[in-house]
Amino acid sequence: MPDDKKKIEVCFSPLLFCSFRNPEAIAVVVDILRATSAIVTAFMNGVSRIIPVETLEEAEEYKKRGYMVAAERDGLVQSFADFGNSPFNFTAERVAGQRIVYSTTNGTQAIHQASECFKVVIGAYLNFSALCEWLIKQQRDIIILCAAWKNKFNLEDTIFSGAMAERILEDQNFYTICDSTLAAIDLHLLAKKDLLEYIDKAAQRHRLRKNKLDDVIEYCHTYDLTSIIPVLENDYLVIM
Amino acid sequence: MPDDKKKIEVCFSPLLFCSFRNPEAIAVVVDILRATSAIVTAFMNGVSRIIPVETLEEAEEYKKRGYMVAAERDGLVQSFADFGNSPFNFTAERVAGQRIVYSTTNGTQAIHQASECFKVVIGAYLNFSALCEWLIKQQRDIIILCAAWKNKFNLEDTIFSGAMAERILEDQNFYTICDSTLAAIDLHLLAKKDLLEYIDKAAQRHRLRKNKLDDVIEYCHTYDLTSIIPVLENDYLVIM
Repeated sequence: MPDDKKKIEVCFSPLLFCSFRNPEAIAVVVDILRATSAIVTAFMNGVSRIIPVETLEEAEEYKKRGYMVAAERDGLVQSFADFGNSPFNFTAERVAGQRIVYSTTNGTQAIHQASECFKVVIGAYLNFSALCEWLIKQQRDIIILCAAWKNKFNLEDTIFSGAMAERILEDQNFYTICDSTLAAIDLHLLAKKDLLEYIDKAAQRHRLRKNKLDDVIEYCHTYDLTSIIPVLENDYLVIM
Repeated sequence: MPDDKKKIEVCFSPLLFCSFRNPEAIAVVVDILRATSAIVTAFMNGVSRIIPVETLEEAEEYKKRGYMVAAERDGLVQSFADFGNSPFNFTAERVAGQRIVYSTTNGTQAIHQASECFKVVIGAYLNFSALCEWLIKQQRDIIILCAAWKNKFNLEDTIFSGAMAERILEDQNFYTICDSTLAAIDLHLLAKKDLLEYIDKAAQRHRLRKNKLDDVIEYCHTYDLTSIIPVLENDYLVIM
């Protein structure tokens, strides 16, 4: 490939990220159900800063120091936390102007892992087009990092990655030779006729339904509600 | 799921195998281009035993002790070895009655990793139906372990895993709740109309073409040339 072309890759699991090492790339962290959808929603509703922390111990420590804390594991709100991982928790009444500490099963770990890249941004259907346009403008390599489920491949992050790769590859300055990217694009091709019907078979869909947390599925698969792009600066997320 | 049903899962990379731990399961190791296709071919041509070794150092040590050695890295035969990884190397003239030491970029490592399972068998298109029938008869959990490419997801192993999962799930005693299995089945659905055309975009296809090693692609995607099932016994593979 000519040197001036930029590559796009999809990484299906944080455990595989070590095979994608590229300090020059922009990493897009994706956890559609629900962490990155919730983060974008929080910024839409005026949160000033989100501090992603990996462990519940860190999150609880912040809580003691007076921070507002969102923390869940396996979809369930932690007892010490103000609320959990549903985008619907991050209402303007609650979060506008606030700094929030955030810890989830998969998403926040993925953000930390991606931080070795040139830049880390947060991807969701909610900010899809704005993010794609911005990424194309940067003309840098792109790694879409799926937060996955406890390191296992998941369908909802993969389908989103396929949609994003397809859109970015419409720009002639990008290419891919990555089998996971090709697979994600093909799976999105199958899914896009009826995204919600396709996602209905995903394991996370069943988990959320079991815990009566599946009210967010449709919202989390809604394109382009905002042009906000959350970006990691030092150890916290802000609006770009 | 009822206790008597057995689950089938697809693991896209040896790096992810730690998330699939199940000592009761049968592991099917898959490296379509080319290790597991070559192993099945070797047994078709009368090899008595294959000793998979992970490192080139081990392989070279065996060579010094008089063993016949097949060893490659990145598709290229190692200078100390008798031959490399092409199924076409394992002719009856050369291998009948022999014990062969075998080391490849991805396949032999995957075999070692899988050895923590109840049993390890070798899967390829060449022994597809016989292997599926045998697996169904065992009524045990199944993990299909894709050898991948240096731990990265690859299309050719995934498509094969999808074909195998689809066939086994026709038996009502098996189920899956694993997103990678669902994705593999869907990708196989897209690919099966013209397997060779689909595989043409795979990264490994390009690597083999570049090294003029792509003469094996069609052969490695040929269904049911044999009913032989190689199985790991202690540290070596034999016919079941």
